[in-house]
Amino acid sequence: MKAARLYEYDPAMNVQLSIEDVAPPTINAADEVVVKVGAAGLCRTDLHIIEGVWKDIMDVEGSLLPYIMGHENAGWVEDVGSNVKSVKPGDAVIVHPHRSCGICLNCRYGHDMYCDHGQFPGLGLDGGFAEYFLTNESSLIKLNTNVTPLDVAPMADAGITAYRAAKRAAGLVYPGAYVTVLGVGGLGHIAIQCLKHLCGARVIAVDREPGAQALARDLGADVVLDGGPDLIEQIKDITGGGSQVVIDFVGELGVENICWKLLRQGGELIVVGYGGQIEVPTVELVVNEIKIGGSLVGDYTELVELMELNADGLVKMHYTEYSLDNINAAIDDFKNRKFTGRGVIVP
Amino acid sequence: MKAARLYEYDPAMNVQLSIEDVAPPTINAADEVVVKVGAAGLCRTDLHIIEGVWKDIMDVEGSLLPYIMGHENAGWVEDVGSNVKSVKPGDAVIVHPHRSCGICLNCRYGHDMYCDHGQFPGLGLDGGFAEYFLTNESSLIKLNTNVTPLDVAPMADAGITAYRAAKRAAGLVYPGAYVTVLGVGGLGHIAIQCLKHLCGARVIAVDREPGAQALARDLGADVVLDGGPDLIEQIKDITGGGSQVVIDFVGELGVENICWKLLRQGGELIVVGYGGQIEVPTVELVVNEIKIGGSLVGDYTELVELMELNADGLVKMHYTEYSLDNINAAIDDFKNRKFTGRGVIVP
Amino acid sequence: MKAARLYEYDPAMNVQLSIEDVAPPTINAADEVVVKVGAAGLCRTDLHIIEGVWKDIMDVEGSLLPYIMGHENAGWVEDVGSNVKSVKPGDAVIVHPHRSCGICLNCRYGHDMYCDHGQFPGLGLDGGFAEYFLTNESSLIKLNTNVTPLDVAPMADAGITAYRAAKRAAGLVYPGAYVTVLGVGGLGHIAIQCLKHLCGARVIAVDREPGAQALARDLGADVVLDGGPDLIEQIKDITGGGSQVVIDFVGELGVENICWKLLRQGGELIVVGYGGQIEVPTVELVVNEIKIGGSLVGDYTELVELMELNADGLVKMHYTEYSLDNINAAIDDFKNRKFTGRGVIVP
Amino acid sequence: MKAARLYEYDPAMNVQLSIEDVAPPTINAADEVVVKVGAAGLCRTDLHIIEGVWKDIMDVEGSLLPYIMGHENAGWVEDVGSNVKSVKPGDAVIVHPHRSCGICLNCRYGHDMYCDHGQFPGLGLDGGFAEYFLTNESSLIKLNTNVTPLDVAPMADAGITAYRAAKRAAGLVYPGAYVTVLGVGGLGHIAIQCLKHLCGARVIAVDREPGAQALARDLGADVVLDGGPDLIEQIKDITGGGSQVVIDFVGELGVENICWKLLRQGGELIVVGYGGQIEVPTVELVVNEIKIGGSLVGDYTELVELMELNADGLVKMHYTEYSLDNINAAIDDFKNRKFTGRGVIVP
Repeated sequence: MKAARLYEYDPAMNVQLSIEDVAPPTINAADEVVVKVGAAGLCRTDLHIIEGVWKDIMDVEGSLLPYIMGHENAGWVEDVGSNVKSVKPGDAVIVHPHRSCGICLNCRYGHDMYCDHGQFPGLGLDGGFAEYFLTNESSLIKLNTNVTPLDVAPMADAGITAYRAAKRAAGLVYPGAYVTVLGVGGLGHIAIQCLKHLCGARVIAVDREPGAQALARDLGADVVLDGGPDLIEQIKDITGGGSQVVIDFVGELGVENICWKLLRQGGELIVVGYGGQIEVPTVELVVNEIKIGGSLVGDYTELVELMELNADGLVKMHYTEYSLDNINAAIDDFKNRKFTGRGVIVP
Repeated sequence: MKAARLYEYDPAMNVQLSIEDVAPPTINAADEVVVKVGAAGLCRTDLHIIEGVWKDIMDVEGSLLPYIMGHENAGWVEDVGSNVKSVKPGDAVIVHPHRSCGICLNCRYGHDMYCDHGQFPGLGLDGGFAEYFLTNESSLIKLNTNVTPLDVAPMADAGITAYRAAKRAAGLVYPGAYVTVLGVGGLGHIAIQCLKHLCGARVIAVDREPGAQALARDLGADVVLDGGPDLIEQIKDITGGGSQVVIDFVGELGVENICWKLLRQGGELIVVGYGGQIEVPTVELVVNEIKIGGSLVGDYTELVELMELNADGLVKMHYTEYSLDNINAAIDDFKNRKFTGRGVIVP
Repeated sequence: MKAARLYEYDPAMNVQLSIEDVAPPTINAADEVVVKVGAAGLCRTDLHIIEGVWKDIMDVEGSLLPYIMGHENAGWVEDVGSNVKSVKPGDAVIVHPHRSCGICLNCRYGHDMYCDHGQFPGLGLDGGFAEYFLTNESSLIKLNTNVTPLDVAPMADAGITAYRAAKRAAGLVYPGAYVTVLGVGGLGHIAIQCLKHLCGARVIAVDREPGAQALARDLGADVVLDGGPDLIEQIKDITGGGSQVVIDFVGELGVENICWKLLRQGGELIVVGYGGQIEVPTVELVVNEIKIGGSLVGDYTELVELMELNADGLVKMHYTEYSLDNINAAIDDFKNRKFTGRGVIVP
Repeated sequence: MKAARLYEYDPAMNVQLSIEDVAPPTINAADEVVVKVGAAGLCRTDLHIIEGVWKDIMDVEGSLLPYIMGHENAGWVEDVGSNVKSVKPGDAVIVHPHRSCGICLNCRYGHDMYCDHGQFPGLGLDGGFAEYFLTNESSLIKLNTNVTPLDVAPMADAGITAYRAAKRAAGLVYPGAYVTVLGVGGLGHIAIQCLKHLCGARVIAVDREPGAQALARDLGADVVLDGGPDLIEQIKDITGGGSQVVIDFVGELGVENICWKLLRQGGELIVVGYGGQIEVPTVELVVNEIKIGGSLVGDYTELVELMELNADGLVKMHYTEYSLDNINAAIDDFKNRKFTGRGVIVP
């Protein structure tokens, strides 16, 4: 089959993925499933993988290279292991990015992203920038009728990361309260849509780009700001003392130490973007009783819930389509911000 | 001042309220407030008061008669006691129906409807079918700019009763789940609007009246049913086994023993309407692990939240206006279903 | 292997289990596990199975007979399927009574008792009154060091049913509140221990038997009552208006319509015992805003939590030991209340 | 009356409180109450007030001096305003340290520590190091029979600060999980007692002082550590990967940047002590999905709950008694750690 493989990490990102013909994956265990890839989203994490950001975390020796990248996958079931009962060949599916064991205590509590034996295909083992892709039954969700793999592939990672943060925010607020979203990119624009359907609070969207601001308005943000130097004062004014929740999709470039100053007493910051370092005096935490917490990729059930919102037409992802042969052009365009929304690779 | 007073209870409802000139209320305690009534909603509970349904609960001797009815009030502050700081004469306000003490433990937990010393003006003591009305500071919420007392008066009771049930339901579900609303009347039509803004679940609305069905569709109900004899089967089909939550705004006429059969395993019935008796085998409760619980009028903070939804244009109440002089005609029209939505009395 | 099989249902309970030599179970699927039984608890449900109470629910034709009963099992892993990774032969384990699939949405949310494909060995298929027993990896919890199968077998069903109810109650109360436990038998005595370690509320234990009352006192119940005709008045007095939570382990014999009258406004009844029919006017539900809900066997994670409490010495089960050869004597003794706590069968 | 007044802030703490004869407070508003002081706890915040730590926050000009310190007060009602109904002269009471308004939205939600108009007697206005003390009805809780003001005065601030943190921790854990308490001083020793009665999790107590370690063991801590350089490794070992919750009662001296490294994935740090600055990379927050949040003094209802635990004998405060005349000696002994537990001033 055709596949795009990474052969070396390069902080300068001058490497290209190699388009090759490789042997398709086969079933090795009773719970495994081979998926014929319909579409695979291109994620900022893919850029970070190429740069070597994740090398120290999961491939110190570099011995996992070469491998096929791609962790936002959707397609059709091609083959199933002997113990697989919930899907059959031909079923259209989206693939949760984590292959979880289903047995460890974290999995049993429903926290499958904390699985003791989880794997993340596309990071260190073969992913979905290919014609076929190996995963297990636990990662699959059947698509609702009328939904195609191409429509939803990036929901598998970008979508649920935004959904998880938005769902947590929604649980913390009530009508009349404010949720501030910092960064209206691939994740932020999903979060705004989710917030407007999961709670009755008001959404303040902040982004420097006029295009992103326009998108935020279209998606129902109640207030849109450009994130200028008086942001803290603006937010305090609008909200009457501070935002109940702030979701930071940036997490670096100085935003990480502005965001918690936007909170009112008792407020909560949800950190999704990363790169920077938060520096906060303990007295600020105590006197204002604020919380600062990270949010990771969503769990399997959160992808199910997001797919239901999508099937109901409430949350949609914008995307630009590229063929697998053109994946290196897609990566270049992504680096150079030549498309809005998400790039999606179709084999 | 002009006021409408009830002089006797009559199960046949042949009595009329007496339109009289009475002395306006005056401040007797440091926390009291006199409100100039702008509008007062007419509630089904008012019919029940006249019928004597509440006599045994709060006026066994009938010694509280005569009194001014009206418990869904909004208007403008006219006069304030010496310790009142949050409102001043001229402020437009809506009045939570319960005069709570603010001191007892229930109040301190925010459960002001459970106040140990609560009073309910309009039931046994003078209410708002008059030009002026006496309450206390604890019951008042200032209206947002651009909102008039006439727009919102019935929110004070009908609105928050529906809101409280909808908010509880919203906390129990997730996208892809179903909330079934039985009865799309004065409360049900508010609940549908709230549900569509408080959670991402689907709403099934059930009502026998074509007009109510049309209203439910307009307000965003995902499925509208007529409540025929195959309702249980229909709901099980649509939901794949039962509704996660059912809100019963009827509570009598047999509906009270159909509603809990609409639930799926782990589901919850929220009972708002009353009159009937639920009869449920304990084995059904245990094997299906369902919950059945009543929901009363909402707390003060719930009225605040509902007013915010209203100010944002997300939840609105339909009403027909009557002058205080015509209150007996309004009562007749209400009994004979001559208007949809709520009747509102303007002094 | 030696096993005790049921050959017919008999409402009069005059049948005996047949002690026979049968073929031991073997692994048929990649996730299956054979357990060498160390101990198997004797449950009231076993009496109900023999009486035919469950016949209509899961064996209408009676075609599942004969089978080996016993659903409260603990022992040692004997053999494992090809995909089993979390346990190995020799490991001491307790067995959750539900063989859940781990794949359906209910399982993914952690609600494995609602599994779409769950099986309950000992009810309609072979259970643990035998030397060996077939289950799957998903049902197994490794025992903490120093804990033997004999110590804990009845925790597998009786224990987690009590724990689940107590955990739910604990989440509803605060110090100064009251939880009333009706029935201090095999489940009730576990619930009291759990409550005293899971929350700071006070526990009122109610039982007619002096022995049960003494046990309740030993286990830390703050108040012990005999359930006489003035129970409602007593509880209202002690609690200042009603109990925040009531757990009814009886559910029949009239208790089912006393229990909800013990609640204060906003209170919750948790129904575990069954047999009777609750009859409650909707107006009582609404005005007092009480909830009535069933509680089933606990989920897998609840058995894990209970085993941790047990390992810490905080919750213990009393039992009387019988050999598998004497199982019919054990059943007789159980019917005739000749032992306190639980009867446990050892092969 | 006799009172101890502060005349100047001094970072070197060389000033003494002046013991003087001043006019006793009188009722000025309908909701006010004069309390005859029975006992007043001496708090580390009192040292910080003298040092001038709070000067910039609430007395920039120093114009509030001189005033009577003391914010952990209990005693007997001496006189009441015209609108006070819940207490009468002679009632024994403990005084919540915050005089909240009861009217603002924060108060209505039960978050009275966030009151828009709250005052904190003892910080900038007269407190309880005196014979009489002025507060309002909203701050008072009647003592249970058999409880004296001297037994509980420090519960009013130290107690509920520890209780609030422990209650939040208890809500995050389950049996088998670990809560780590850093610092077993005046607050930490209360938190350990609360944790052991509010949840079934295990408590790890960490303190460098052998006396504090012994106390922790006496109070039921499951593991006691000395906080040496291998603390992170020790905690990871004991807990199998990290503590679910950490409560940091130190918040400075480097502890503030060790504490969050003790958490497992999904864990939460509750910061109570302050002084230092937390520095945490956003990637650590995201990948481990940890939360870091401050905890302030508890709300009124939390003091009620704590007093119930105390009345039940479950949580007790150790103290050393000083007369008001000797308050400067008490302050010196506190600075020099000459007593364990809390110092209490008796007029």
